[in-house]
Amino acid sequence: MNIYLDNAATTKPSSEVINAICDSMNNFYANASSLHKLGMECDKKINECREEIAKTINCSKDEIYFTSGGSEGNNFILKGLAKKDLHVITTNFEHSSIKNTVQFLENNGVKVTYIPVDSNGFIDIDNLKSAINKDTVLVSIMYVNNEVGTIQNLEEIGKVIKEISSRAKFHVDAVQGYGKLPINVSSMKIDALTVSAHKINGPKGIGFCYIGKGITPIPNIIGGAQEKGLRAGTENLPGIVGLTIAAKDKINHLKENYKKVEELKNYMINKLSDIDNIKINSPMDEGFSPYILNVSFAKIRGEVLLHFLSEENIFVSTGSACTSKSKGGVVGSHVLEAMCLTKSDVEGAIRFSFSPDNTKEEIDKTIEILKKGLLLLRRIKR
Amino acid sequence: MNIYLDNAATTKPSSEVINAICDSMNNFYANASSLHKLGMECDKKINECREEIAKTINCSKDEIYFTSGGSEGNNFILKGLAKKDLHVITTNFEHSSIKNTVQFLENNGVKVTYIPVDSNGFIDIDNLKSAINKDTVLVSIMYVNNEVGTIQNLEEIGKVIKEISSRAKFHVDAVQGYGKLPINVSSMKIDALTVSAHKINGPKGIGFCYIGKGITPIPNIIGGAQEKGLRAGTENLPGIVGLTIAAKDKINHLKENYKKVEELKNYMINKLSDIDNIKINSPMDEGFSPYILNVSFAKIRGEVLLHFLSEENIFVSTGSACTSKSKGGVVGSHVLEAMCLTKSDVEGAIRFSFSPDNTKEEIDKTIEILKKGLLLLRRIKR
Repeated sequence: MNIYLDNAATTKPSSEVINAICDSMNNFYANASSLHKLGMECDKKINECREEIAKTINCSKDEIYFTSGGSEGNNFILKGLAKKDLHVITTNFEHSSIKNTVQFLENNGVKVTYIPVDSNGFIDIDNLKSAINKDTVLVSIMYVNNEVGTIQNLEEIGKVIKEISSRAKFHVDAVQGYGKLPINVSSMKIDALTVSAHKINGPKGIGFCYIGKGITPIPNIIGGAQEKGLRAGTENLPGIVGLTIAAKDKINHLKENYKKVEELKNYMINKLSDIDNIKINSPMDEGFSPYILNVSFAKIRGEVLLHFLSEENIFVSTGSACTSKSKGGVVGSHVLEAMCLTKSDVEGAIRFSFSPDNTKEEIDKTIEILKKGLLLLRRIKR
Repeated sequence: MNIYLDNAATTKPSSEVINAICDSMNNFYANASSLHKLGMECDKKINECREEIAKTINCSKDEIYFTSGGSEGNNFILKGLAKKDLHVITTNFEHSSIKNTVQFLENNGVKVTYIPVDSNGFIDIDNLKSAINKDTVLVSIMYVNNEVGTIQNLEEIGKVIKEISSRAKFHVDAVQGYGKLPINVSSMKIDALTVSAHKINGPKGIGFCYIGKGITPIPNIIGGAQEKGLRAGTENLPGIVGLTIAAKDKINHLKENYKKVEELKNYMINKLSDIDNIKINSPMDEGFSPYILNVSFAKIRGEVLLHFLSEENIFVSTGSACTSKSKGGVVGSHVLEAMCLTKSDVEGAIRFSFSPDNTKEEIDKTIEILKKGLLLLRRIKR
């Protein structure tokens, strides 16, 4: 039996999502931009989804733009709002679709300030305050870090940005937070937000951006008039329907799911205390998402342990799937490096990421195999 | 019963495609970039698809890059290869995702030559020859026009470009041609090609670009190392599988399907001869795709006729779905204007677009309703 603890990389679509996608492909196959009856029915369906999605983050449906997922969404907002000679603030701790896009912008004349994070991955709000200047047009900070689960204080960050600047827009990469932790774009003073469906048991290839009224990024995909001219391309209705079903399910069970994974994480951390020479990089704490447990195993390379577990049908990550194959090999996690972990702790890191469907029995089995693997592999290494 | 004659806008996914997508969502749900066994199985599956797709256009699998569809693909190639002060050639007859992206590039300092088309939509090869200069880095010309079906002579165009320039890359928007007409990127000397799945009974939200070896566009979606670093974002495995099944089916039945729709188009043109005051904008001719029949009905607005037909469950377009809702209203087709049609012929244009699944009985019914509609609506207009 498979034990899937790689839910931060992607999740299995729920049967409701799969059924709805099949139904949509059969019954709502027209082009939502076609002017005839079938097209209008598709357009109506998409707008119902837009309204449902808007409710989940407390915005208006006119502020929701469907995209192909998180990476596109982050590219859209960043490249769409930042311009040469203007100033962008981010952290040194972001997902590669932010990190590498900001790097691209910097190479093209955008001024960038990277705010460091502390050993737990939190930014210092005073650093943010002093980084904002008259040219700052965008502050992009992720909600929940994808490798260690650090939760930034969005309420505080949003408040500070708006107190200091009327120009700077606040963008949040919420790919790992949406559907797991509450998001209220109004009270958090968020101007733009990125979400991906496949992280919440929705389909791959679909996501959305929230973009506050009055903000008009340059489109990243130029062409037809879809999404009010901000994202061209035939609307992916089956994907949008699947995303919406997944999102509603997550929002309706947010607290209950949180409690379930909190128990799992707590249970696993307790069980891990039997194992020597480990370091918990994402402790049991309000400031960390219970969905992610990152552990450094000393005297072993994470990748070796990952493959050992994989052979036993236990599936985990060393870090982000999105950087796993960079340049054909495994690279050291920039996230763990930003937290100033030792080289050895970076190399020995494993990310266990939970779903509410995981069980304590799966954790027991994982611990058992982990112990077996560490005994064997640490001996080999020695 | 519905008579769907809007297959150039989008197509109904085949049951094989739908079943394969559902199966993939259930059984290949991991992240293809994850390093464990489930991830590797997904990666293997995607590479099998890549190989199958490569065969359909006679290229190597390393030259296939999956995208979210045609608009993204066109943006990727155009923005990825054109640079400030360099020169791009295109026609005044392209899909909006080329037209508006080229316009964006022009606004950002790229030099652009728009080659005009004649009254049938064909470019003059001598115009292309004289347009190519030492700064020309890209020639982007569509294979089959989406509104009237004009087929450009890619063999001739490719040959001419390569004879004159070793620098200029040849890009083809093949969204309306792929799976319907033969494509051989080698003999046609094509350097980059854009395809969308939903035009060939595949799923929405997926497509691919062919990019010849040694050509490295700047990514339009920056982030993780997916698609050899040229297109970030978690691989949409179910979409890729659906695209591949659709593509193989189309390629395997290319001639047979061509013959079927050719008969349908011919049949409909003959039946249309009963109707007064019409103009066939896409004649029965080798230079036009049989999948598209564009007709101007005098003394009536296309949109009014479209809605009349829609009420009778016959579904057609006035032009491209992608420009149908520009600025909240219907705009005159830039394609028909490029062909120098009169204002009245542009306004009265209807696009019937066929699938091999359409029948002569459906054409009979369509002609019957058309006659009824024209009698009524032309009378009202008068």
